[in-house]
Amino acid sequence: MSLADLDAAEAIAGIASGEFAAVELVEACLERVAVRDGDIGAWAHLDPDYALAQARERDADRAAGRALGPLHGVPVGIKDIVDTRDLPTENGTVLDAGRRPSRDAHVVALLREAGAVIMGKTVTTELAVLAPGKTRNPHDRERTPGGSSSGSAAAVAAGMVPLAVGTQTNGSVVRPAAYCGVVGLKPTHGTISRRGVLAQSRPLDTVGVMARTVTDAALIADALAVYDDDDPDMTVRARPRLAETAAADPPLPPTFAFVRTPVWDEADEETRAAFGELAAFLGEACDEVSLPEPFDRAVGWHRAMMCADQAKSYAVYYERGKAELSDTLCGMIEEGRETTAVDYNRAVEWRDVLSAGLDRIFDRYDAILTPATTGVAPVGLDSTGSPVFCTLWTFCGVPAVSLPLLEGRDGLPLGVQLAGRRDDDARLSRTARWLVDRIAGEADE
Amino acid sequence: MSLADLDAAEAIAGIASGEFAAVELVEACLERVAVRDGDIGAWAHLDPDYALAQARERDADRAAGRALGPLHGVPVGIKDIVDTRDLPTENGTVLDAGRRPSRDAHVVALLREAGAVIMGKTVTTELAVLAPGKTRNPHDRERTPGGSSSGSAAAVAAGMVPLAVGTQTNGSVVRPAAYCGVVGLKPTHGTISRRGVLAQSRPLDTVGVMARTVTDAALIADALAVYDDDDPDMTVRARPRLAETAAADPPLPPTFAFVRTPVWDEADEETRAAFGELAAFLGEACDEVSLPEPFDRAVGWHRAMMCADQAKSYAVYYERGKAELSDTLCGMIEEGRETTAVDYNRAVEWRDVLSAGLDRIFDRYDAILTPATTGVAPVGLDSTGSPVFCTLWTFCGVPAVSLPLLEGRDGLPLGVQLAGRRDDDARLSRTARWLVDRIAGEADE
Repeated sequence: MSLADLDAAEAIAGIASGEFAAVELVEACLERVAVRDGDIGAWAHLDPDYALAQARERDADRAAGRALGPLHGVPVGIKDIVDTRDLPTENGTVLDAGRRPSRDAHVVALLREAGAVIMGKTVTTELAVLAPGKTRNPHDRERTPGGSSSGSAAAVAAGMVPLAVGTQTNGSVVRPAAYCGVVGLKPTHGTISRRGVLAQSRPLDTVGVMARTVTDAALIADALAVYDDDDPDMTVRARPRLAETAAADPPLPPTFAFVRTPVWDEADEETRAAFGELAAFLGEACDEVSLPEPFDRAVGWHRAMMCADQAKSYAVYYERGKAELSDTLCGMIEEGRETTAVDYNRAVEWRDVLSAGLDRIFDRYDAILTPATTGVAPVGLDSTGSPVFCTLWTFCGVPAVSLPLLEGRDGLPLGVQLAGRRDDDARLSRTARWLVDRIAGEADE
Repeated sequence: MSLADLDAAEAIAGIASGEFAAVELVEACLERVAVRDGDIGAWAHLDPDYALAQARERDADRAAGRALGPLHGVPVGIKDIVDTRDLPTENGTVLDAGRRPSRDAHVVALLREAGAVIMGKTVTTELAVLAPGKTRNPHDRERTPGGSSSGSAAAVAAGMVPLAVGTQTNGSVVRPAAYCGVVGLKPTHGTISRRGVLAQSRPLDTVGVMARTVTDAALIADALAVYDDDDPDMTVRARPRLAETAAADPPLPPTFAFVRTPVWDEADEETRAAFGELAAFLGEACDEVSLPEPFDRAVGWHRAMMCADQAKSYAVYYERGKAELSDTLCGMIEEGRETTAVDYNRAVEWRDVLSAGLDRIFDRYDAILTPATTGVAPVGLDSTGSPVFCTLWTFCGVPAVSLPLLEGRDGLPLGVQLAGRRDDDARLSRTARWLVDRIAGEADE
């Protein structure tokens, strides 16, 4: 077994105890990259010497008796729409070829402060929308890894890094995590600062994380959930302490609302059957709950909001280099230019109504249980699959996590999505950890 | 002298000490209404028996030794777009003729809780926009009282009530206060709940108050500045304590930034001259400060936002009864239907930039000093005058107050507007009180 296969919590403990050095861990991860990335293509920018130099500094810190950060020595992949002062940030478009930001995004600065090693930049779709980058699914090279945080999901799945940062405006953390078989956590909107992250849609853009365990996802999210006055959607409040809560036993066994959602018919037969079985397995801990009519319109409202915001946020790209943008994105921008303020603001108002409706569910259930995707990662590299099972949760800004608990055809991962109450990411993490253990326990029996 | 001429602070003290009863105060105010309202027309709905019944209850409370509220026994006028459970609320349009809300607006409930007497409903322009109601200026019946809070300003100016509630989406508190020669305070956006108040534009709508002294305006604003979970733009925070701060001496003599604003040329010669003299009178306490280029565009951004929001908020009126709406309002709604989401959201972003620019001014000065209007109330009742000197402050959501400190032609009131730092309404009140005293002191010499 390679050190690259350790999860982050194990790696942190091993480095802290002196069992191995950060340099050894990073070397093992670089070795994994060398062996596997040739046909996966998870990385947009990776400089082994630079990663090793950081690891050596972390080891020197430890040798000098300096305090260790909560992610001391752990390599992290960063989606290439998140600014780094020492690596390019090209946003998945040739229009930003060679772009070198002068400052770190807030999340990158927080990772450095936590002692993490910035391993490199992971492949994103074009401007974090739909047009795919070069990445392939580690489970099957002919399948998409999902997007837009394609490289982050694939890198974690292939053991090239234990942790990665992604972002979600529709389904860009949860979907690739599900397709690649890792844990993808999209916290409550406004939990992690977006300063220095490519802005697509202020009410929707959310920084999320990828890991191979719920505990690891909670660990890195804890390091990132720090108030930043520069993100207008953040508010000062107590830090969420996800890892501590996730590690604790729930006071009562969690209860789940199995929600098929208005897009249930878009799930394939295998997925529908698998979720029926999962709900049955949970028995009395799980009730089926249906969402009333206005929820049917969430996908349309989300699209109005997202396209109008793309038209504003990406106007400079469109005006400067339309010919270099994908037809898909140009179509969305053109659609968004026509969106009226009335329709946009109606969507904003309905979002509040739907969120209040979800709150009534969370009054009775710890989490909503629902598919993360329509099925396993589809064959083909010209699409990143459908985000439709993620849209509602992103629109409402509630936390959502994809857990690699099911298997579809050919043993491909099929993600289980849990959504939680707004600002109760800690409980969602605890419920997710409990569910993973419960299903693992069953498998062991 | 009639009890109707007392300011609210005097009335509260007189009732509390038993010098006179609330019933006597309300009778005096009703007498004033009987004498003067015939040719002013400040009231949309006023039932003397109902006002007297409340006053008798307040007197009974006092006789029974119950705790007195901070506005115990004081009659207050309520703009007729603010819901009252026991008086009609017709929003200034025949489309709402006979409308009887089942619940009080949050501000009305707070006023009752504070012991105030709900005197009646004051005339508003059509849906709080531009088309005038029946009200005339108490200083000259051929002149507009301003709008949209026309009746509130006129009623306070004529001594029919010492206090009134208004609202401002562009210049609807500050402008009528200035034209009628009273104090009009528009607090920071999000200070007073808008639950039960006709919604026109969420980012702009602000509940404000009218009084004859700064102290009185602070008193009623204190009673209204109570957190309400139902207003999405309010945040939980310490109550502002305006009256206490306004009564205190400033630690240092206040400093003023005299800002001509990009619309200076719209002020008439008399107004420009009067403000030049006022700035000169303040001497070293006042510097002239100019606003850089993007501020020139605030009026356009405000209009895009306001018209688009009217199109959404008033869609039902437009669809149900376009023929009953004024041409002005139909034109604004039609303009607003065409506003794109991109333009609207650019305005939202620029508002943040301008607000940050104003903060730099408030780092150095206690208040911005600027005209409240282009001049004295114009002749004619088919317009409520220009709100243009109010637009920037409403757009940025900063607190603004009009003070009746200057006189124009024929002794007509000319308002001095002070704008303050966002969420520092207390300091603005103190600075305003200081300025009123300073100028009164000069006049006495």
